[in-house]
Amino acid sequence: MNQAVTYQDIEDAAGILLGIAHKTPVLTSRLINDQVGAEVFFKCENFQKVGAFKFRGGFNAIAQLSERDAIRGVCTHSSGNHAQAIALAAQMREIPAYIVMPSNAPSVKREAVLDYGAQVIECEPTLIDRELTSQKVIKETGATFIHPYNHPHVIAGQGTAARELIIELQSKDIELDAIISPIGGGGLMSGTAISTAHLLPHCQIWGVEPKGADDAFQSLQAGQLIPQTAPNTICDGLLTSLGSLTWPIIRDSVEKIMTVDDHEVVAALKLILSRLKILIEPSCATPLAALIKYQPPANVKRIGVILSGGNVDLERLADLYTNPSPSS
Amino acid sequence: MNQAVTYQDIEDAAGILLGIAHKTPVLTSRLINDQVGAEVFFKCENFQKVGAFKFRGGFNAIAQLSERDAIRGVCTHSSGNHAQAIALAAQMREIPAYIVMPSNAPSVKREAVLDYGAQVIECEPTLIDRELTSQKVIKETGATFIHPYNHPHVIAGQGTAARELIIELQSKDIELDAIISPIGGGGLMSGTAISTAHLLPHCQIWGVEPKGADDAFQSLQAGQLIPQTAPNTICDGLLTSLGSLTWPIIRDSVEKIMTVDDHEVVAALKLILSRLKILIEPSCATPLAALIKYQPPANVKRIGVILSGGNVDLERLADLYTNPSPSS
Repeated sequence: MNQAVTYQDIEDAAGILLGIAHKTPVLTSRLINDQVGAEVFFKCENFQKVGAFKFRGGFNAIAQLSERDAIRGVCTHSSGNHAQAIALAAQMREIPAYIVMPSNAPSVKREAVLDYGAQVIECEPTLIDRELTSQKVIKETGATFIHPYNHPHVIAGQGTAARELIIELQSKDIELDAIISPIGGGGLMSGTAISTAHLLPHCQIWGVEPKGADDAFQSLQAGQLIPQTAPNTICDGLLTSLGSLTWPIIRDSVEKIMTVDDHEVVAALKLILSRLKILIEPSCATPLAALIKYQPPANVKRIGVILSGGNVDLERLADLYTNPSPSS
Repeated sequence: MNQAVTYQDIEDAAGILLGIAHKTPVLTSRLINDQVGAEVFFKCENFQKVGAFKFRGGFNAIAQLSERDAIRGVCTHSSGNHAQAIALAAQMREIPAYIVMPSNAPSVKREAVLDYGAQVIECEPTLIDRELTSQKVIKETGATFIHPYNHPHVIAGQGTAARELIIELQSKDIELDAIISPIGGGGLMSGTAISTAHLLPHCQIWGVEPKGADDAFQSLQAGQLIPQTAPNTICDGLLTSLGSLTWPIIRDSVEKIMTVDDHEVVAALKLILSRLKILIEPSCATPLAALIKYQPPANVKRIGVILSGGNVDLERLADLYTNPSPSS
């Protein structure tokens, strides 16, 4: 494969993140194993810095900037976990971070980014204004734009989560037969695929998407990149389209992409909360929802799941319990 | 001190639990440290087997039964974490467990105990009928009664949580200035006090109770055991009175007992969920509520908190968010 990112890039990222990113715990549940029909190992990136795997990629990208570029700062447009990752990583490198956010972003997300010392630049809540505002910021400040997923160092950073999981399990003589990640823009999935293909060549690599944002599933079916339009799902971390870097990696290494509806996601979310005693965001429950729905083949006995993040608005989570009205 | 339980008993329990109980993780949060004004180390017993520290004491008590007693089984009356702990520990020793439960206990608690292979014996939802029914079961079966807290091996088992926390932190050159546990019947508090007094003689030992069940606070004030009557709090794990074994230990080694109302508990619960990304039961949030309310003195820079358990009914938790109507 001639890829934008290689396993060596992930090794490099792991070196950069050593002692910086948390080595997140791996949890299991006997009852969940029974429901899936296989042993499931959950890599808990909800315990990662900023509460999501995004810190890995954001920090790696910022760490690899030249001193000359770095001092002028970094910029991104996001109101989610990537924004927090960039804000914290920039704070750690002591450089400015400019986060372009729509004027209607929840104040709690704004405050999280401000807490990390970033500057928030407001824009209209449209994709076009986000991009125009980002370009203006970059022009004025000389900051480097860090894309949330279509960036080699971001992809390499995200790949360190699967690498860590595989290596930890190998040290206990446990070899995974399959690994599964959710797919939004494809940064986590791409990094997971590269780590897994290198470290465990016989391990199956699976993706999962919400039915209401299944552009990767559609793309894999069609054999060409089909952008996501009008996503409709409670999985707010998985709304975006694949990128030019992530699509070829996913096309060439992901064996299948499963899709789950929001009701299945809520059921899996409840199972993880009640059994693993951890807090996760809806996007993060999609892999377990898929495993329960599709049941792995008999030759797949051990499955690794990347639990992507835990940044859920608690009032919203409560609402999913008391008044579940998922969209699909 | 001439106590019913010594540090050696806790060492013995730790040996028995080695490889059996989970070595639970220790979590921290920068934002929580800022709010408390000290570094706080959370010992996450919500990840313990059965979802609570109670497994430690239950297993230790059952492991130390003679073979002759053990084969006739064990009995307890509880609808909470202790019932699950006894059921699982009995299953592991392959002996019968008889759990006396009020007829109005939630079906989910009943099922959890049945899942561990225990027999459930229904009684009227009164203390007197619980005890009469237990006595009847014991007489008929020859089972040994395992009290939820007023039992030396149970206290010793609970003390292994604080021991583990202190030893893990010492291996990282971190020495606690204070340790804090919630107080229900006093089993966890007693075990915590014994471990701490032995391993860290200069560490302050604090307890916390909900205002609506403050019998230990009242007892410490009065210098004599005052039983709890008509408890009224959302902290359903902390409703019981101290026992004849736990009271003297607490009297002699706990420096102060703080009290918190249910609104303070809910605020702390939300903070733990949103920042540590873990699920805990309301009782378990009382120590953080107290630390935020009372703010530790300046000479207390590092505080250990035993997070007691995570068995919360998720619908109830959601309800606390959307419609908080605590009792006090």
